[in-house]
Amino acid sequence: MEYRVTVMPGDGIGREIVEGAVKVIKKIEEKYNHKFNINYADIGGIAIDNHGTPLPEETIEMCKNSDGIILGAVGGPKWDSLKGEDRPERGLLNIRKELGLYTNLRPAIVYEPLKNASPLKPEIIGEGLDICIVRELTGGIYFGEKGVKEDGTAYDVLSYNEEEVKRIAVKGFETAMKRGKKLTSVDKSNVLESSRLWRRVVIEVSKDYPEVELNHMYVDNAAMQLLINPTQFDVILTMNMFGDILSDEASMITGSIGMLPSASIGEKYGLYEPIHGSAPDIAGQDIANPIATILSAAMMFKHSMGLPEEGTAIEKAVEKVLNDGIRTRDIHTDSTKLVGTEEMVSLIVKNI
Amino acid sequence: MEYRVTVMPGDGIGREIVEGAVKVIKKIEEKYNHKFNINYADIGGIAIDNHGTPLPEETIEMCKNSDGIILGAVGGPKWDSLKGEDRPERGLLNIRKELGLYTNLRPAIVYEPLKNASPLKPEIIGEGLDICIVRELTGGIYFGEKGVKEDGTAYDVLSYNEEEVKRIAVKGFETAMKRGKKLTSVDKSNVLESSRLWRRVVIEVSKDYPEVELNHMYVDNAAMQLLINPTQFDVILTMNMFGDILSDEASMITGSIGMLPSASIGEKYGLYEPIHGSAPDIAGQDIANPIATILSAAMMFKHSMGLPEEGTAIEKAVEKVLNDGIRTRDIHTDSTKLVGTEEMVSLIVKNI
Ligand SMILES: CC(C)[C@H](C(=O)O)[C@@H](O)C(=O)O
Ligand SMILES: CC(C)[C@H](C(=O)O)[C@@H](O)C(=O)O
Repeated sequence: MEYRVTVMPGDGIGREIVEGAVKVIKKIEEKYNHKFNINYADIGGIAIDNHGTPLPEETIEMCKNSDGIILGAVGGPKWDSLKGEDRPERGLLNIRKELGLYTNLRPAIVYEPLKNASPLKPEIIGEGLDICIVRELTGGIYFGEKGVKEDGTAYDVLSYNEEEVKRIAVKGFETAMKRGKKLTSVDKSNVLESSRLWRRVVIEVSKDYPEVELNHMYVDNAAMQLLINPTQFDVILTMNMFGDILSDEASMITGSIGMLPSASIGEKYGLYEPIHGSAPDIAGQDIANPIATILSAAMMFKHSMGLPEEGTAIEKAVEKVLNDGIRTRDIHTDSTKLVGTEEMVSLIVKNI
Repeated sequence: MEYRVTVMPGDGIGREIVEGAVKVIKKIEEKYNHKFNINYADIGGIAIDNHGTPLPEETIEMCKNSDGIILGAVGGPKWDSLKGEDRPERGLLNIRKELGLYTNLRPAIVYEPLKNASPLKPEIIGEGLDICIVRELTGGIYFGEKGVKEDGTAYDVLSYNEEEVKRIAVKGFETAMKRGKKLTSVDKSNVLESSRLWRRVVIEVSKDYPEVELNHMYVDNAAMQLLINPTQFDVILTMNMFGDILSDEASMITGSIGMLPSASIGEKYGLYEPIHGSAPDIAGQDIANPIATILSAAMMFKHSMGLPEEGTAIEKAVEKVLNDGIRTRDIHTDSTKLVGTEEMVSLIVKNI
C-alpha cells in the first residue's frame, strides 16, 4: 500500500527528532514493503520566518492530503515577543482546529527500565503506571470567544455543547474498553456551568458502556490524586484546559517526558507529536531524546493507517534498546550507556 | 483589647477541628489577657439544613461584625445531588465575594519532622520546601457570567480587569518582599486573552518592587515544575482557577495537607480555614487532624488582629508537639505516638 505522510519539524529540537521518526518510517517501508511518500511542511516559528504566518495555507493543504502527520514541536525565545495571533503556538492550535482533531490521547507510562526516573517515591509508583489521558482538543476556553472590552476587561469564554462533549466522551469510553475499563471524568462541576453539562453528558454516554467503571473527580482533587495514588487511574477524560495541566503533570510523574508520544485525532485526520516542547536551549547539539517522536510514529501506524503490527515493531525496538541500557542524556544514569540523538535513532532502526 | 471572632464549623469534620481552634483561642485569651467574643454561624450543608440556604443573611452579618473569621470546611455526600446555586460550596464562594476576600494565601510548607511524608523523593525536597501561593479569590471564571444558552451550550466567562489584577499583584509582591523576594506569576498567556492582561499588569506592578525577582510560567509548566523542582519557588501568584489546582498540588507535595492553613483576605475582613476538605468519611470519630485549623487561627492573629506574638506562640506550640513525636492518624508513622483529635488539641494548648 501507498501512504502519504506530512512531516512538520517545527522549531528547536523539532528537526532532529522528526528526522529520527522519518528514519524509522523508512525502515518500516523497507521491511514491510509499503510505500510512504513523505512531504515536509512548515509550522510555528519557522513558518513565521519563511511565510509570515505560523500556519501557512500550503501546510494545511498538505496535511489534508495525507494519511498521517508527524509534528516535532513549536516555539522558542525568538518569537516570544509576538502577540497572540502571530505566535508559533497559534500554528499548533489552528491546525488542531482546521483538521478537527478533537481527541488528544496522551499516554503516561512508566517504562520498566526507567522506573527510577519518577520524582515520586517507588512505593507510590508500585508495579508501574499506565494512564491514558483523553483530552478534548478543539473546544473549551482555548477556542471560545476572547477579547478585550472597551473598559479594558480581558475575557475568554469557556463553552461546550452536548455534541462536543458527547463525541469526546465516546472516545473516552472506547479507549477505556480497549484498556482497563475504568474511566475517571475530571471536571469542576461544583463551580462551572460547562462542567455540569460535561458531567451530565458523560453520565448519559456511560449508559452505552455498562462494562466501564465510571467515576467523577474535581480537577483540584485530580491534581492531588495523581501524586499520592496515580495507579488508581486507567483513562482520564477531561476538557481542553484541564487536560493541558493534568497531562503535563501526569507525564512528569512518569519521569520520562522525553519518551511520551501523543495522538490528536479527528474524524478524518491524525496528527502525532511528542508531549515535550521544542527545547531551544539544546537544539542542534545531538542530545535530544528522539524516542517520544519515534513512538508518535508508532501511534500513527496504529491509529491512522491501520498498521498495528508495524506500530508494535517500533515499540518493541524501543524497548529492546532501553533494556540494553542505551540512554540519551535526559534519561541517563550511572550504570547505563550515554548516546546522542543520532546514535539512539540508528540503534532503534537496527532493532526493527 | 476586645476582639470579635466568628466561627463557622461547616460540615463533616468541621465541628471537631474548629473546636480545636476555639480552645487555642481561649488559651491565648487567658495567657495574653485579651478578650475574644466568639460567635458561631452556619455555612454550607448545615446552613442548607437549618436555613434552606448555604449562606444565610445572619451569617454574612455576623462575619461583617467580626475582627476575624474561622471556617472549618463545607460539603458532603448528603448535599451532592443539589444544583449549583444551592450547594454547600456556594456558601463558601459567596462569603468570599460578599466580604471582598480577594487574596488567598496558601502556604505549602514541609514541616521538618514530617519530611518523609512527601510523595516526592527526598532528593527533590532537599532541605525543605516553603512556598506561598497567592491566589486571586473573587474574580476570574469562578465569578464570571455563566449559564446555558437556548441551543444547550453551557458557558462560563473568565474575565479580569486591570484593577483586579493590580490589587492581587500588589499582594503578591508585598508577600514576596516579606519572604525570599522571588515571585513566579503563573498564567496561560500563549492561549488566553485574560492571561495576556494578567502578565502585562504584573509586569507593570513589578516596577514598584525592583528588589523582587519576577518570572513568568505557563500553568502546564508550573504543574510540572512543582514535581521536579519545587524548591525553585518562593511566591507563586496566579488567578483563581489555576490557584485552585496548583495550590492543591503544592499542598499534596508537602505530604502534610492536614497541617496547612490558609488565609482569605480583603480590605476589611479576613477568613481563615484549613486547606483540606470536610472529610465526611471520618467525621465524629476523633481522628481528624486539627492542626491546619489551629494554624489558621495563628494566621488570623497575625493578619487580621495585629497580634503576631500570639500567632507565633501557637506555631511554636504546634512545632513542639510535632517534635515530641505526637501524631494524628494522617501523619502517624511507626516511631511516633498516635493520638486523637482532642488529645492533639490538649497537648498544643498545654504548650502555648
Ligand atoms: C503550546 C500550547 C498552546 C499547547 C496547549 O496548551 O495545548 C501545549 O501546551 C500542549 O499541551 O500541546
Ligand atoms: C469548594 C471549592 C468551591 C473551592 C474552590 O474551588 O475554590 C475549594 O476547592 C477551595 O480551593 O477552596
